[in-house]
Amino acid sequence: MKDIQILDSTLRDGAQAEGISFTLHDKLDIARRLDQQSVAYIEAGNPFSNPKDMEFFSIADRLALENAKLVAFGSTRRRELRAEEDPGLLALLQANTDTVAIFGKSSVMQVTEVLNTSLENNLQMILDTVRFLKQQGKTVFFDAEHFFDGYKGSAEYALSCLEAAQTGGADLLVLCDTNGGCFPDEIARITAEVCSVTATPIGIHCHNDIGCAVANSLMAVEAGAVQVQGTFLGFGERCGNTNLSSLIPSLQLKRGYRCIKEECMESLTKTARYIAEVANITLDNSLPYVGSSAFSHKGGMHVDGVRKNPSSFEHIAPESVGNKRNILVSEVSGRAALLSMIREVDSSITKDSPEAQLLTDSLKALEKEGFLFESAAASLELLITKKLGRFHPFFQLERFKVIGEQEAGADSGLSSALIKIKVGEQSEITAAEGDGPVHALDLALKKAVSHFYPKVLRLRLTDYKVRVIESSDATAAVVRVLITTTNGEEIWTTIGVSRDIVEASLHALMDSIEYRLMKSSS
Amino acid sequence: MKDIQILDSTLRDGAQAEGISFTLHDKLDIARRLDQQSVAYIEAGNPFSNPKDMEFFSIADRLALENAKLVAFGSTRRRELRAEEDPGLLALLQANTDTVAIFGKSSVMQVTEVLNTSLENNLQMILDTVRFLKQQGKTVFFDAEHFFDGYKGSAEYALSCLEAAQTGGADLLVLCDTNGGCFPDEIARITAEVCSVTATPIGIHCHNDIGCAVANSLMAVEAGAVQVQGTFLGFGERCGNTNLSSLIPSLQLKRGYRCIKEECMESLTKTARYIAEVANITLDNSLPYVGSSAFSHKGGMHVDGVRKNPSSFEHIAPESVGNKRNILVSEVSGRAALLSMIREVDSSITKDSPEAQLLTDSLKALEKEGFLFESAAASLELLITKKLGRFHPFFQLERFKVIGEQEAGADSGLSSALIKIKVGEQSEITAAEGDGPVHALDLALKKAVSHFYPKVLRLRLTDYKVRVIESSDATAAVVRVLITTTNGEEIWTTIGVSRDIVEASLHALMDSIEYRLMKSSS
Repeated sequence: MKDIQILDSTLRDGAQAEGISFTLHDKLDIARRLDQQSVAYIEAGNPFSNPKDMEFFSIADRLALENAKLVAFGSTRRRELRAEEDPGLLALLQANTDTVAIFGKSSVMQVTEVLNTSLENNLQMILDTVRFLKQQGKTVFFDAEHFFDGYKGSAEYALSCLEAAQTGGADLLVLCDTNGGCFPDEIARITAEVCSVTATPIGIHCHNDIGCAVANSLMAVEAGAVQVQGTFLGFGERCGNTNLSSLIPSLQLKRGYRCIKEECMESLTKTARYIAEVANITLDNSLPYVGSSAFSHKGGMHVDGVRKNPSSFEHIAPESVGNKRNILVSEVSGRAALLSMIREVDSSITKDSPEAQLLTDSLKALEKEGFLFESAAASLELLITKKLGRFHPFFQLERFKVIGEQEAGADSGLSSALIKIKVGEQSEITAAEGDGPVHALDLALKKAVSHFYPKVLRLRLTDYKVRVIESSDATAAVVRVLITTTNGEEIWTTIGVSRDIVEASLHALMDSIEYRLMKSSS
Repeated sequence: MKDIQILDSTLRDGAQAEGISFTLHDKLDIARRLDQQSVAYIEAGNPFSNPKDMEFFSIADRLALENAKLVAFGSTRRRELRAEEDPGLLALLQANTDTVAIFGKSSVMQVTEVLNTSLENNLQMILDTVRFLKQQGKTVFFDAEHFFDGYKGSAEYALSCLEAAQTGGADLLVLCDTNGGCFPDEIARITAEVCSVTATPIGIHCHNDIGCAVANSLMAVEAGAVQVQGTFLGFGERCGNTNLSSLIPSLQLKRGYRCIKEECMESLTKTARYIAEVANITLDNSLPYVGSSAFSHKGGMHVDGVRKNPSSFEHIAPESVGNKRNILVSEVSGRAALLSMIREVDSSITKDSPEAQLLTDSLKALEKEGFLFESAAASLELLITKKLGRFHPFFQLERFKVIGEQEAGADSGLSSALIKIKVGEQSEITAAEGDGPVHALDLALKKAVSHFYPKVLRLRLTDYKVRVIESSDATAAVVRVLITTTNGEEIWTTIGVSRDIVEASLHALMDSIEYRLMKSSS
């Protein structure tokens, strides 16, 4: 079993993504999590270009990492300075990590047109920089920027850049597809060629501009690379970097490489959700291995096949990466799927039980009205529990009223909501203002319920989707509202359907709260 | 230049994705758009398993497709029936397409464990089915389900399935990586082996369960496949299918294959956004080629490099796929695109006119707020006319109020809206009840305006779409409402954006009425 080093650059290359901005606190949280996930290296920032990164390194000791090593990132010395006086390199040393990554150019076009120096001088810059850092006792990774494009232009020059780094004493030479435009066959061929002529270990760093970053990294490993650089969720400039949550299980479960500790495989899904939460992005459902739909089955034939033999439509066991199978209940898949959901609530029910028939009938009737339970498992579980008479209501809605108004000349209107609920004999009436009626209602409902169950204040909506189901009736059409909620650890989705968007939203909001109360009381 | 046939299965395999549910109207819209994009085939559904799909085929004539051929999808005959009495095959014929795709099993495990029949009988089913459909004059694609996994288990049996289809007269043999777990090197090797022993043309159909669907399809083409099956945005069961918006430009711009008409390359981005809008999903920013961040540059070094030579950090020119570069520092780009919209209203305006500058500034400001004028040409025309001082208001909104309420025990609530408008010195105040606040407002507004302009009573809303733009704030997020209206002859779409869904809807409703009044008075 061959070891593959994983270098996660979520905190450095990932922070270059549009819409991503980490606080210092976020960076510490993510580093801690990546360490638990047992990646070999965490590239945590560029201490010279970013003061926040320098601050991170200055307090990084308190992370007390157990598995991963921190890497500080910088560039080769400036063309006109000596290495020992280059402010970027001095900042890099100040980061005080055992390992540093240095990028340098390895393409003729880049050297002459962008860096604006001679080919000879670029080689000298690489050599001096690596040698200087080695003299300081560092482990040095040399990232050969634009390596593949450079190699396609002049293999000789691209290789001479690697050679300069090697002469300087580099511990690893990283081949970068900086523009992300290379095909898997090119990456495989060039990596193999480089491995055959270089004594130093080779790493791979890909971008996803043609959607091939993961495939390209897999091919590079097969061709001899021993380190893969990427970001856990594929964050990165433009189309992102190699998605490590896709790459790691492919290498480890399917090709027998060892990327992370065996016992950490099952937390891949949890780590993916954790990082998405910290980064405040919605995790793509369809993400390989860790997405919430990665093992969802909708088509009737697929549902049937997976039941007979999971490997029919699953390339690995979902549990091996901490994910789970999802049988989607939809018109496409029919009764068998519904039954299996019912049995998750009560395994004693069989397809011949009278309850099963009643439940299937009423779920099917709701689907006709526009409910889409495949996307709202929490509402489905709640509904089944209610229909089986096992739900003990936490509160009752007495009445609500929303008012939206706007005067002539006003820039925007005002929405307020009044709500009254009852728990046992005790009533609570309250009100809230918000941006629009749904927002006002959300705030008012949580306020009222928290009077009895303070923990609902922790719930936070992460997604709110509205879909008009029969759009030919336009504004009077039935709308379907899907609401996704988190308590910081778990994520669940609930649904509401009505001709009135406010009412549909209220149902989904109430389901979300009831579901959580039910789960935490059971 | 070698031709590669593109088969788009957004309407069939794409509809299997979790959270995707197309109305008949959506399906027609998407088919029309794919035709404009000049894909060779549109696989539009399974007429047997889904009544909605059958309905689509029954009215598909009115699409009058110019470039694409429709494909109906079904499976091999049941093991116990003759082909000519199999209801699935009869439904397939009823769809009345020239081309049909038939899937059949090609893996020993699948045949014996899931299909539950003998290996011999499965071959007979394939042969009979293809032969029967050929006798009916169809062009037949045979989709060999689980081909790659089957081939890895028993190459001999997998090939004998292809042979059976070939003997039956199949026009194309499609190799499917149904579970999406194969590596690019496996796909390349096996496809090449198949091509070397098979006379019939080969197609490729990949799934994205290890994040390699695009790479695998590229490798298959290089190994000899002449058709690629996928979905335009990668929609599909579990982790999705091959994303054609990534695949097409890679093949056509970088390897010289011809997948779609040359002049359609520049509308790839527009088509991607259109389909996402119809499917009501948020298009991933970082999607290769067509994502809004695909050519965004954030890091200072990257911005500088791209300025010196775009190919520094761009693997292709963004314009070649209708996308644009995004410099995420200082002033934004994209003025040219907006200018061309302005000139559609007044062709005398050039980029140096002072009006052009003012208009671009204010349109850009609105786009930042979440306006999406691409989908709402009527609102754009109205806005430009207003900004150019050429709009004469037909009425003024004085104030509005909406009330929604529900009592305990009531099945549903009651919404009412009050609205006051002014025309010259004359005011009109009125009210209406409706299903939900937006419906009530729609009715009240039309009632008030019709007092002065009776013809607005003829207007009928045909579509109403709500989209949450920044979903991380959930119910307080900005919503975008798109409303499509008809007067029986013409159809136009207007937009409203606000944190308040009622307010956003009102703006779109008012735009719709104002646009019509403007058009019919000019």
